[in-house]
Amino acid sequence: MMEPTAVLLPAIREALAAKDFRTLKESLEEILPPDVAEILRQIRTDEQVLLFRLLRKDQAAEVFANLKVEEQKALFEVFTDQGIKAIIEEMNPDDRTELLDELPAGLVRKLLQLLDPGERALAHRLLGYPESSAGRLMTPEFVDLRPEMSVEAALQQIRWTGPDKETIYYAYVIDQGRKLIGFVSLKNLILADPDKPVGDLMKEEVIAVHTLDDQEAVADVIKRYNLLAVPVVDSEERLVGIVTVDDVVDVMEEEATEDIQKMGAIAAAEEGYFQSGFFSLARRRIFWLAALLVTATLSGSIMEHYASAIQAVVILAFFIPMLMNTGGCTGTQSATLIIRGLATGEIALGQVARIILRESAMGVLLGVAMGVLGFLRAVFVPGSDPTLWTTVGLTIIVTVTAANLVGALLPLCAKAFRMDPALISGPLLTTIMDAMTLVLYFEIARRLLHIST
Amino acid sequence: MMEPTAVLLPAIREALAAKDFRTLKESLEEILPPDVAEILRQIRTDEQVLLFRLLRKDQAAEVFANLKVEEQKALFEVFTDQGIKAIIEEMNPDDRTELLDELPAGLVRKLLQLLDPGERALAHRLLGYPESSAGRLMTPEFVDLRPEMSVEAALQQIRWTGPDKETIYYAYVIDQGRKLIGFVSLKNLILADPDKPVGDLMKEEVIAVHTLDDQEAVADVIKRYNLLAVPVVDSEERLVGIVTVDDVVDVMEEEATEDIQKMGAIAAAEEGYFQSGFFSLARRRIFWLAALLVTATLSGSIMEHYASAIQAVVILAFFIPMLMNTGGCTGTQSATLIIRGLATGEIALGQVARIILRESAMGVLLGVAMGVLGFLRAVFVPGSDPTLWTTVGLTIIVTVTAANLVGALLPLCAKAFRMDPALISGPLLTTIMDAMTLVLYFEIARRLLHIST
Repeated sequence: MMEPTAVLLPAIREALAAKDFRTLKESLEEILPPDVAEILRQIRTDEQVLLFRLLRKDQAAEVFANLKVEEQKALFEVFTDQGIKAIIEEMNPDDRTELLDELPAGLVRKLLQLLDPGERALAHRLLGYPESSAGRLMTPEFVDLRPEMSVEAALQQIRWTGPDKETIYYAYVIDQGRKLIGFVSLKNLILADPDKPVGDLMKEEVIAVHTLDDQEAVADVIKRYNLLAVPVVDSEERLVGIVTVDDVVDVMEEEATEDIQKMGAIAAAEEGYFQSGFFSLARRRIFWLAALLVTATLSGSIMEHYASAIQAVVILAFFIPMLMNTGGCTGTQSATLIIRGLATGEIALGQVARIILRESAMGVLLGVAMGVLGFLRAVFVPGSDPTLWTTVGLTIIVTVTAANLVGALLPLCAKAFRMDPALISGPLLTTIMDAMTLVLYFEIARRLLHIST
Repeated sequence: MMEPTAVLLPAIREALAAKDFRTLKESLEEILPPDVAEILRQIRTDEQVLLFRLLRKDQAAEVFANLKVEEQKALFEVFTDQGIKAIIEEMNPDDRTELLDELPAGLVRKLLQLLDPGERALAHRLLGYPESSAGRLMTPEFVDLRPEMSVEAALQQIRWTGPDKETIYYAYVIDQGRKLIGFVSLKNLILADPDKPVGDLMKEEVIAVHTLDDQEAVADVIKRYNLLAVPVVDSEERLVGIVTVDDVVDVMEEEATEDIQKMGAIAAAEEGYFQSGFFSLARRRIFWLAALLVTATLSGSIMEHYASAIQAVVILAFFIPMLMNTGGCTGTQSATLIIRGLATGEIALGQVARIILRESAMGVLLGVAMGVLGFLRAVFVPGSDPTLWTTVGLTIIVTVTAANLVGALLPLCAKAFRMDPALISGPLLTTIMDAMTLVLYFEIARRLLHIST
């Protein structure tokens, strides 16, 4: 199950070598598009072109949609214009929008020229919606019914038009002005009396999204109501498309990747690891690294400010890595919990009071636990004394409590200012935590150890 | 669309206050289960019990399935045994397994006692599969057909048995021994000649998972092939259940949350922020914090080892936060990229050579860029000199290059040893990066500044 292509590849290779196109064509018929895509990755370019010619038109388009952008670009360079036209014309409109979205503008213009006028207008229209919007994600290939139709007539229409639709399991009922007025599932239709009008059967409370809604909102709706598809309406409530659950699954994966990257201090992009260009990835990483290095100036300045304290009691410096790490880790933990809670919709801004209460208590609990551990750790450092042990323990209690609350509040502030909470984790949090830890440490030390600065 | 309950809640509240049960019953009929669950959260317990009594039996079960564990537990305490029985008997088997999974053993025993023998045996069987396995996730309520049936007979059977099935859009064909031998979609059936036998229509190459497969593997299959459901077979290839795409959407969200938490140094759990108990969350956080504090001993010991160097040139200490942060952040970045790539399946262990090559080049590029920046930063520190500037710049080049490669390799090693790569990020990585940075820094400084230790 896990590696279906491992079994198929040798047979395909053999048939290619033997130029046994008939066997090849027959075995390709049986292989699912994602698996054909997998096989394509493992053969030479001339063999790829050959394989594509042997695929059924609709299969070729689906295999193509399963490839990654740079693989698609590479193939466009070796395909004839006729071959390209055949593929992009056969692609589902939503897959095609996704493809055109990612290609350079020059190539997009060329590809649009190849399309028939109708398909070209459609592609233009879909590309006109903002990036990451429901409009970009949707397909106009849905089943629409009229309320006065009988169930039997509706089923007949689904039989006729079904093969071209993205899904036939959900049908949407529209009025003369194409306004969305109801919804029936194929399940409802199949189980209903054939003579009943669709209007009597349909649910009038239809869950829909707007063309300009963000793809995350679309995913949330599908997830919340366990839908197979959600209808997309324009500003006049006219039905213009549907987004299906398989697209939402991809969106969820993309969004999780973006959040994880931001939390890992990498400017986010939707592409995977190998898909990202080397220099574009380097740029996305250098940005945060440079920001961190520049802001670390703050920690440096704080250390400079307390230089005399370090000089007087060098042993103070030994604990700096431990203190910074403990504070930083605590802040990262609470920030992570809040960022993820905001992302999954479990946490709302209205719950700030409850979060402050919870995280204050949590901070004190963690602080005391870590403070005791830190105190014990300090006891084992040669040349240390009870005052230093106390300094270390006390610093941990205070910094962990503060770091925990700050880590929780920063993403909430970001959200309140309509920024992305995930951007908070990483360098910004680290800088704030480090500076806070150092100041607290040296101020506590100065007082307890009676050092003048 | 976004807050449907905000509109409904006032009307519900009013009807509750006026004890207008008829209106209440009618308006509840129209509200979808996730929205009823939302409304329940915002009313008193006695009102909750009342509302549940007004719901249709199947609706009550669905609303209940949409609540969170502690909400479910709280309701079980106020419901009568009869009320509990009605709900858990009406629940979908997969929702019920999920519920029983999360309740304390004593309560589970009590609930199982309430079930009818047939349902009890089923619940026992589903709970018998390992946690997070396909068996736990599946429902036995699927449509099964026999190959000799005509399309018309198949549609008739779907009409009869459909209302109780989790989905009727995919049907599975089994032989006399209940072995899975084929698959037809309702789309295929609707579009086919009514007299044709199902056996002629079905696809014989069925994508299936095994009961013991991990839920992540199930999610991968559904994602890869854009399925609405996947059949689950036992060790003898007999069809025992299906997993539907809506469950996989939940699994994906859970898995992303787990990975994000692990990367944020929190022992992972599937629950959301407010769902986690205060002390259970504290335990999950203290583990990593304590681990970090203990391992930070290493950095402390390194600093102790180079105490004389710090004492001789106190200015060296000023750069420690900047150097540690830059190294740590670089390591986190490359670890994040690899961990996410492994999680989405884009990166496989076989690509180690390519990753080492890419990350070595990336490390040198980032190292030189950051080294130049660090050098310039050092120039502005009062009391520094060209040798110190060079020490800082050189340390950054070497540590960033090394941190980048180590950050990428650690998750790959974890994967190779069948550990969870996401566990690598966080404390372990930080400790290694810190120790590496400090040793490199002091060794370079010792040589360039001619300090004896």
